[in-house]
Amino acid sequence: MKNIKMIIEYDGRRYLGWQRLGDSDKTIQGKIENILSEMTDTKIEIVGSGRTDAGAHANGQVANFKTNSEMDLLTMRNHLNRYLPQDIVIKELVEVPERFHSRYHVSGKKYSYYVWNELVPSAFERHYSYHYPEKLNHEKMQEACKKLVGRHDFLGFSSLKKSTIRTIDEISIRQEGALLHFTFIGEGFLHHMIRTMMGTLLEIGSGYRELDSIDMIFDSKIRSMAGETVPAQGLFLDEVYYK
Amino acid sequence: MKNIKMIIEYDGRRYLGWQRLGDSDKTIQGKIENILSEMTDTKIEIVGSGRTDAGAHANGQVANFKTNSEMDLLTMRNHLNRYLPQDIVIKELVEVPERFHSRYHVSGKKYSYYVWNELVPSAFERHYSYHYPEKLNHEKMQEACKKLVGRHDFLGFSSLKKSTIRTIDEISIRQEGALLHFTFIGEGFLHHMIRTMMGTLLEIGSGYRELDSIDMIFDSKIRSMAGETVPAQGLFLDEVYYK
Repeated sequence: MKNIKMIIEYDGRRYLGWQRLGDSDKTIQGKIENILSEMTDTKIEIVGSGRTDAGAHANGQVANFKTNSEMDLLTMRNHLNRYLPQDIVIKELVEVPERFHSRYHVSGKKYSYYVWNELVPSAFERHYSYHYPEKLNHEKMQEACKKLVGRHDFLGFSSLKKSTIRTIDEISIRQEGALLHFTFIGEGFLHHMIRTMMGTLLEIGSGYRELDSIDMIFDSKIRSMAGETVPAQGLFLDEVYYK
Repeated sequence: MKNIKMIIEYDGRRYLGWQRLGDSDKTIQGKIENILSEMTDTKIEIVGSGRTDAGAHANGQVANFKTNSEMDLLTMRNHLNRYLPQDIVIKELVEVPERFHSRYHVSGKKYSYYVWNELVPSAFERHYSYHYPEKLNHEKMQEACKKLVGRHDFLGFSSLKKSTIRTIDEISIRQEGALLHFTFIGEGFLHHMIRTMMGTLLEIGSGYRELDSIDMIFDSKIRSMAGETVPAQGLFLDEVYYK
């Protein structure tokens, strides 16, 4: 039995997120499983590196599946890309050792969040960024990023209740015209954690919130101390790392 | 009477192009005129710098219109952006001298054409670029660009029949990963001229056509000597220049 790893790009706009929900045809996992199952004439389940939110995107989601199919991988990729909707693209298919598991073996992830920081909205970026027209203090946000990096209990930034200690290795902010590109690299992120850190960073940048409030969120571990959860549409899963 | 100049951005995907067609609600000009007319309670016609093709986009289309409205320009811009579909954005409104005419006074235009040059398509760029998976010889295309720049009769690159002499000031090619960004700057371009030059450049880049064929197109002035007219979806009107 072959174990095949796939790297997947998707425009999440039309979907309820990565994870299959019953028979719903509105998830990325569901779409790919349907085509794979038809193609191989067996029921195939794929394992993703983790969920992505409804409306969030991916440049480099990873998943794997097992199959007895004799089809070569290039033919398989072409077949998948021909029958998948055009907003889901299989970028790579490679055979991996049988023990490889897309979720258990993750060592880190890289996400991007895009903010359109101009008074006037953008006709092009509106589905791929969050329109936040307030003037932002970039230095303050950089300092806030430094406070977030490292090993902390991120309970205050999430709606989860246990096992909330995580390490963030890097947060960077780059400006491309009106578009601000925030990158987050870490071993893993809690549910809504990036979107809540983003809301907090933007409130700090626009002066609605003090830099110190980050320490208070870490200390209190209370979700309501943190900023708003910004919309999923600016969020991209860029890369999944394995050892 | 005030003369107001507007700078407009649009995602052309859903439209039949810039120019109003009868009562059709499927053109950018028509959409803007409808909102402006409702807003001022008078019939307003706007003059654009020129047409853009069905499916082509704009970062910087220019148009002007005359009005007796006393509304200040910031309020007017906000009103327009609130009631226009989100894929059309008014970036700027400025009052200009009464004699200013968006079409007659154009001194040049800048267009971009984007090519997605990788075997696998892109989930994000598919509406904003032309997927051309052939391996391209960049040096050959650069040389071909040099041949196109300058004052020539571009009849062979267009479907028009008269007044086909134009000057191109600059063509540049930049690579951003798999995305090739072609920029064209010149006093003006004939109908389909950029899309036909692009088809010709790509055929030269992929080795299907010789560099010399550009001289042959200029000499013969025969449209069928030139390359394919590539799709509008990669084409952006970036900027319109006035003296």
